[in-house]
Amino acid sequence: MRRASDVRVMHVGLGPIGCAVARQIAARKGMKLVAGVDVDPAKTGQDLGTLAGIGRRLGVKVTADAVKTARAAKPDVIVLCTGSAVKTVLPQVEMLLKTRTPIVSTTEELAYPWYTHVRQARRIDTLAKKAKVAVLGTGVNPGYAMDALPIALTAVCEEVRSIRVDRVQDASRRRLPFQQKIGAGLTIEQFQAKVRDGSVRHVGLTESIAMIADAMGWRLERITDDIQPKVAGETVTSEFLAVDPGYVCGIIQDGVGYVGGKPLIRLHMEATIGQPESFDAVEIEGTPSLSMKIAGGIHGDVATASMVVNAIPHVLGAAPGLHTMRDLPLPSFYPGRR
Amino acid sequence: MRRASDVRVMHVGLGPIGCAVARQIAARKGMKLVAGVDVDPAKTGQDLGTLAGIGRRLGVKVTADAVKTARAAKPDVIVLCTGSAVKTVLPQVEMLLKTRTPIVSTTEELAYPWYTHVRQARRIDTLAKKAKVAVLGTGVNPGYAMDALPIALTAVCEEVRSIRVDRVQDASRRRLPFQQKIGAGLTIEQFQAKVRDGSVRHVGLTESIAMIADAMGWRLERITDDIQPKVAGETVTSEFLAVDPGYVCGIIQDGVGYVGGKPLIRLHMEATIGQPESFDAVEIEGTPSLSMKIAGGIHGDVATASMVVNAIPHVLGAAPGLHTMRDLPLPSFYPGRR
Repeated sequence: MRRASDVRVMHVGLGPIGCAVARQIAARKGMKLVAGVDVDPAKTGQDLGTLAGIGRRLGVKVTADAVKTARAAKPDVIVLCTGSAVKTVLPQVEMLLKTRTPIVSTTEELAYPWYTHVRQARRIDTLAKKAKVAVLGTGVNPGYAMDALPIALTAVCEEVRSIRVDRVQDASRRRLPFQQKIGAGLTIEQFQAKVRDGSVRHVGLTESIAMIADAMGWRLERITDDIQPKVAGETVTSEFLAVDPGYVCGIIQDGVGYVGGKPLIRLHMEATIGQPESFDAVEIEGTPSLSMKIAGGIHGDVATASMVVNAIPHVLGAAPGLHTMRDLPLPSFYPGRR
Repeated sequence: MRRASDVRVMHVGLGPIGCAVARQIAARKGMKLVAGVDVDPAKTGQDLGTLAGIGRRLGVKVTADAVKTARAAKPDVIVLCTGSAVKTVLPQVEMLLKTRTPIVSTTEELAYPWYTHVRQARRIDTLAKKAKVAVLGTGVNPGYAMDALPIALTAVCEEVRSIRVDRVQDASRRRLPFQQKIGAGLTIEQFQAKVRDGSVRHVGLTESIAMIADAMGWRLERITDDIQPKVAGETVTSEFLAVDPGYVCGIIQDGVGYVGGKPLIRLHMEATIGQPESFDAVEIEGTPSLSMKIAGGIHGDVATASMVVNAIPHVLGAAPGLHTMRDLPLPSFYPGRR
């Protein structure tokens, strides 16, 4: 109960992921929720504990003005969960860095922006250095399951020739918004329209491929990111949905990184209702080759929140600038200070 | 071929592991073998390339005087492979740090000396800081398979209740000295005698358990490390040995870390001739639980050498002091500088 030394955490963005992180922060030793910010007028004014589903009031009111709130609450770190795109969060990061507070974000494109958003990454890196704080984008995917973990597995290799990662999830155990995000219940035409407008899509395969390529010293020629519907052959059901034959029951997404004309990095994702087996698998072809499988897979919702919370001590200890999971210390459950 | 910026590596200790590391260094881009030291008179005077089995002469003569050689060769890093015990290598580390050169060592007890060798660890840390260089003990086990890797898997957890790691190896594919080290071919009495004199034993379970416990914030009450012979039920053979029924075909070693009276960390090793399936497995009981398996396992000889070589850039970039795999950046194959 060394309250005086608790890490003071402020939340910006209180959607499902932000609230999941907040619930973990509230339950962890050595961490304390000191502020919550969201632009949604339905959320501002609410107690952060109530809104985040912590099960008790925290006496912390959700506000709309992040900078003002940060200046009043003096957090040690800001958890930023407002969007997937670097372009969306860049102005927020710029603004928040004015308060000289370290930032951990679940923004997928920020997990490894050094391929697709080099200019913005440089800008964040410069501003973070000026503010003398560290910034990190992380999460279970991107940030771990399809990049940091396979990279860590190559540590035993004297040569790496190719890397394949499979993340196959039974979406029926996930929350309803996730099931909708993967297109479950749509017709094929509806699914394709949503792929075109970008609303059905996992963001992060490109970032994961770029992180792996840089770690392996491979010069990427191009990255492809292809989305296909998985169509139900028979009726499949979840707690929330039933999908009839011929309708979409989920998403199949393949990211490929080409080096020297060859597909050296292949990331394959499936998230479908009715998937009989969830798993995460990594196949490294090299010396030695390596074949790893996590039976049952890594559950996405809990794991993304855990990744953020567990990364906080590393971000607090890191040199100023924009970091990625590649250059921070070994990822690990953070038990709080003893 | 940017020779001018190659990392200059000096070897101290040219037994099987030292030579395996040297062979990788010789084959890697961006690294260069500049000196080799061994106290064995049969080795000094030989060409390092010939001795290490690199397949060509390097024009580098193996010497017996490490400090003198380091001062002449000006290495960027020293790879120290002279023994398993901190007590053995401590005077060597002290001596080598006088040359202000970073050190990566395969000394098993140095992989995490903060439980059994706290005084010596503090001394090395102090001397390394004085010399303004980093020191690391690493290898595949301890250093990775039964500590760093399971720790990295906990990054997705919001709670960890217990950790079990299994490393099961078919020793028939390993080199003869390894098969002898695990007691293959001995009678049960001979095996027990060798366990008592310490010559049949995997060194490192205690260090791995301590590393995991510290990462999880668990206060260890005690660690047990128990060795049993595996007795052949039928004749089993390797390229080098045949073991008849009733004789020892390998070793079973169990390390247990107790926290609050409970065996929260359990490390189980088997290395036997005739083992049908090699694998490495991690079971984390927590939120979420996690069940990982590497089919075929991680081959020990190549992997230890890879771990050392791949750690070199991290050691060169680390703050002065004694490090462990816990606090260095994400382990990864090192492709050399581009």
